[in-house]
Amino acid sequence: MGNELLLGNTVNTNASWIAAKITSMGGKVTRITTVADSLEEIVAGVREAVGRRPSFLITTGGIGPTFDDMTLKGVANAFRLRMELNDDALSMIRAHYARRFPGREPMLTKPRMKMAIIPKGSTPLRNPAGTAPGVRMSINRTEVFVLPGVPKEAKAIFRRSVAKAVGARTSGSAFIEQWILVQGIMESALAPMVDRAMQRWPGVYIKSHPRGVEAGKSLIELHFSTTSLNARTAERDVQSAVSNLLKALRSSRVKLLRRQ
Amino acid sequence: MGNELLLGNTVNTNASWIAAKITSMGGKVTRITTVADSLEEIVAGVREAVGRRPSFLITTGGIGPTFDDMTLKGVANAFRLRMELNDDALSMIRAHYARRFPGREPMLTKPRMKMAIIPKGSTPLRNPAGTAPGVRMSINRTEVFVLPGVPKEAKAIFRRSVAKAVGARTSGSAFIEQWILVQGIMESALAPMVDRAMQRWPGVYIKSHPRGVEAGKSLIELHFSTTSLNARTAERDVQSAVSNLLKALRSSRVKLLRRQ
Repeated sequence: MGNELLLGNTVNTNASWIAAKITSMGGKVTRITTVADSLEEIVAGVREAVGRRPSFLITTGGIGPTFDDMTLKGVANAFRLRMELNDDALSMIRAHYARRFPGREPMLTKPRMKMAIIPKGSTPLRNPAGTAPGVRMSINRTEVFVLPGVPKEAKAIFRRSVAKAVGARTSGSAFIEQWILVQGIMESALAPMVDRAMQRWPGVYIKSHPRGVEAGKSLIELHFSTTSLNARTAERDVQSAVSNLLKALRSSRVKLLRRQ
Repeated sequence: MGNELLLGNTVNTNASWIAAKITSMGGKVTRITTVADSLEEIVAGVREAVGRRPSFLITTGGIGPTFDDMTLKGVANAFRLRMELNDDALSMIRAHYARRFPGREPMLTKPRMKMAIIPKGSTPLRNPAGTAPGVRMSINRTEVFVLPGVPKEAKAIFRRSVAKAVGARTSGSAFIEQWILVQGIMESALAPMVDRAMQRWPGVYIKSHPRGVEAGKSLIELHFSTTSLNARTAERDVQSAVSNLLKALRSSRVKLLRRQ
């Protein structure tokens, strides 16, 4: 959620951080969507997302104290849930201000109370790095996690409360990847070699990334990856695909610059 | 488009660069979507996007020579267009390789030809920074621009062929913005002041971004922005909103650290 992303002021690093985490746990991210801080847009966005029946929907942004923080209201409207003051959320917020201003009774002003008003039936998640609690709820068969937009806070709640839930669903799955950087072949010449390798190892996904031209020769980075329930097989398949492609490249006199 | 974005390997800087460009021209970006390199996902994504009836749909990625570059096929499938070899696109590709390898007749291999196969009725756009031409077409009332994923190439085609089309629709609109950084107030205390300023200048959008704590005091960055057909009014409104809020902040002994 976030106008700042749509204005282009802010790059969506939350999305890539969360995607990388889920991928490394053996999960598969199928869609990333950015919508405006508007009730209508949030309602449309979360309805579409849940309609695709994912195991998880994770949102970031729009749960702070300001009027344009309306992700929770948007989720509630999308699924006809009532918004209500949650006592646990309120305790978390009170505790947060008490820690920040020791010895003073925290004033629970309207903007502060707002962060404790969450959809009926949902659970607040402690925010170890800020004020607004995250929120968890089940909608149809999707586990929905609503996280803050401040990266430090989104990461803290993800680590504390989301990772375990995702891990339980992907348990046993491993994500294996390898990068190689080669010089001296154009993507169009590489394409058929990549196709052949992917036909031979159908579980391995190989993606080429042109990285410009150096000393008149094209640089291309290749990313090999696979997700599998069997880490050993996955590792072996990726290594075989890499070796096979490197062999084909050597016979075309392509230079391997880096493998990691 | 792009698995690398969904794997979290790559941050979507194309999206924020394009969003910033469109915003600065007075346009409004309403949605950013990332889908996988899969025909089904691309078809679903572009259908949903065009279904929201935007003036423009701009895609990046998935138009190179490799098998998983399938954005154009996805767009064609979504709107039942035939894919066909485009002579202008082919000339652009031939010219590109002729420039890269002077004196040699470029081999038009299958992966290279692939980049000239585009939806019937669409127009190829010269790529001054790489091989694959961009593509432009009208679908219902949406102007669709399909750009490469390599940032340098996406930017080059945007500047050369997209900016003018977007500018023609937003002509006269101005985007005015101002940032201020303040220290010594929490977002929850700032929220009502922001609300009041936005009620008084309804065209001005004010967004607060918590930037952590320094010397025990919260840092908050505030972004004021507006899009208006009248640049002078827009500028005046933003300045008034900034001054008004700064006045309220001074009386709460909040320190202004930066204004730009």
